[in-house]
Amino acid sequence: MRLIDNVAIVGVGLIGGSFGMALKKRGLAESVIGIGRNPERLQKAVDLGAIDEWMTDIKAGVRDADLVYISTPVGLEVHFIQQAVMAAPNGCIITDAGSTKGEICRQADRIVRKDVHFVGGHPMAGSEMTGVEAANPELFVNATYVLTPTSATSPEAMAVVQKLAEAIGSKVIVMDPEAHDWCVAAVSHLPHIIAAALVSMAHEYSLKNPQVFNLVAGSFRDMTRVASSSPVLWRDICLTNVEEIQKAAESFKQHLTEGLRTLESNDGEAFMKWFGSAKQIRDSIFWPPQENKDSS
Amino acid sequence: MRLIDNVAIVGVGLIGGSFGMALKKRGLAESVIGIGRNPERLQKAVDLGAIDEWMTDIKAGVRDADLVYISTPVGLEVHFIQQAVMAAPNGCIITDAGSTKGEICRQADRIVRKDVHFVGGHPMAGSEMTGVEAANPELFVNATYVLTPTSATSPEAMAVVQKLAEAIGSKVIVMDPEAHDWCVAAVSHLPHIIAAALVSMAHEYSLKNPQVFNLVAGSFRDMTRVASSSPVLWRDICLTNVEEIQKAAESFKQHLTEGLRTLESNDGEAFMKWFGSAKQIRDSIFWPPQENKDSS
Repeated sequence: MRLIDNVAIVGVGLIGGSFGMALKKRGLAESVIGIGRNPERLQKAVDLGAIDEWMTDIKAGVRDADLVYISTPVGLEVHFIQQAVMAAPNGCIITDAGSTKGEICRQADRIVRKDVHFVGGHPMAGSEMTGVEAANPELFVNATYVLTPTSATSPEAMAVVQKLAEAIGSKVIVMDPEAHDWCVAAVSHLPHIIAAALVSMAHEYSLKNPQVFNLVAGSFRDMTRVASSSPVLWRDICLTNVEEIQKAAESFKQHLTEGLRTLESNDGEAFMKWFGSAKQIRDSIFWPPQENKDSS
Repeated sequence: MRLIDNVAIVGVGLIGGSFGMALKKRGLAESVIGIGRNPERLQKAVDLGAIDEWMTDIKAGVRDADLVYISTPVGLEVHFIQQAVMAAPNGCIITDAGSTKGEICRQADRIVRKDVHFVGGHPMAGSEMTGVEAANPELFVNATYVLTPTSATSPEAMAVVQKLAEAIGSKVIVMDPEAHDWCVAAVSHLPHIIAAALVSMAHEYSLKNPQVFNLVAGSFRDMTRVASSSPVLWRDICLTNVEEIQKAAESFKQHLTEGLRTLESNDGEAFMKWFGSAKQIRDSIFWPPQENKDSS
């Protein structure tokens, strides 16, 4: 079912490539152009069916676009939004897939013209893998897709992006950009930093006793999985959300200190209550329970 | 292949039940008696093939045992080791499956008689599930099985336990009890407390903005998985390892602070280097890489 005519995807990696595949597989767009720097990788995206054709010049690439999808690293987005705004035709909608939204939406609202619309977005789908080789047309199915309209956002443009996000299988949540950043700092950004800190600590331990790595089991493996994510990607994400990450870190440290304090006081009852309350909350979030793995 | 004659398992839950199944399936023991409090649950263990028969009186149960396997909650172990020592025949070997070893091995060395031997052990296998219903004869296959002999441990008894652990499929590591506790505090016990603290923090966030739980993705789910473990079990484990957990917490906080400090200084290069170094270490521990899941 056609929802849009010409789409230009700026940055055809895992997310951009999957978006192109999802549009094409479902017949949602008339044409999909990919825009990037590397001709070889763009041709790969064509071969994989993520885009129909490619260009390295963003201004030429967005000239006939009804929708521009910015899925570059977060740190480069504002630059490309600016380029797209300058070259896009009247009525064009620009949306993005950045993992933080406050700074990007503030800048975009400052940049956009009256007849070119911006809608901030964050598809909560991804993987430790990167690149169009990892892309797949079902990546967004059942994923949460956050849209972050501001007072400057056109309701019509918002409705188009929401329809597209739903058409590729996502569940759309509408949030304020700042509220989005405050939340993801706590449930995504800080956890990535904690995972890296856990690995650094274990490494320090291993220098004193190399056997420590023979004792890692499922708990450590799962808790540190995201420490294997791309450092470039996470540098960009975290640097655009420093203040909210600081707030989350303060809150986390307080909760950690509370748990440790009950333990240090040798108050088994209080510690069990503290741990049990966390268990109850987690079980209510992830219900039905996930498959069980070894955890010793 | 018969390695031992009469085995008595004290505490026939996930670990004890799996140990019984593993022995019986491989023909490693002549007979396996289960000892516990609850006749109904013990009969269930017989029905599931974990033990041949059961008793509720530990002194009667260990009277003819060549090996006593203590797999009760950690907080009760010393009591049962004491009971077993009093009633066991000459030459009997007592071993345990407790998740901490320092305190248990110290107490056991104090308790044992000259002709009854103790060998501390920690099979690093488990699950969030508990009870003999979750037991399976392959639980120990490819798992690390730590043995923690002390200067008081009989080398012959140690050799018997090691052979059994290897015969059920485990990889045996020999460590000092204190070194074991120091290591697992860092890679298992503290991570469980961190997982619970993350959940508590997210709960506090949800009171201010309920949408936070709509934004949890794979990273948060995996990092908090072990917060769904048994509060009773983890109370017992953590309470027997308070000092080592405190040391691990201090080290973790330093590494977390270091990561946050590079971020707060807006030094992208330093933050990427810090995160990248953790990635490199983790990738070298878990090689080949685990299956990738969504992580946004």
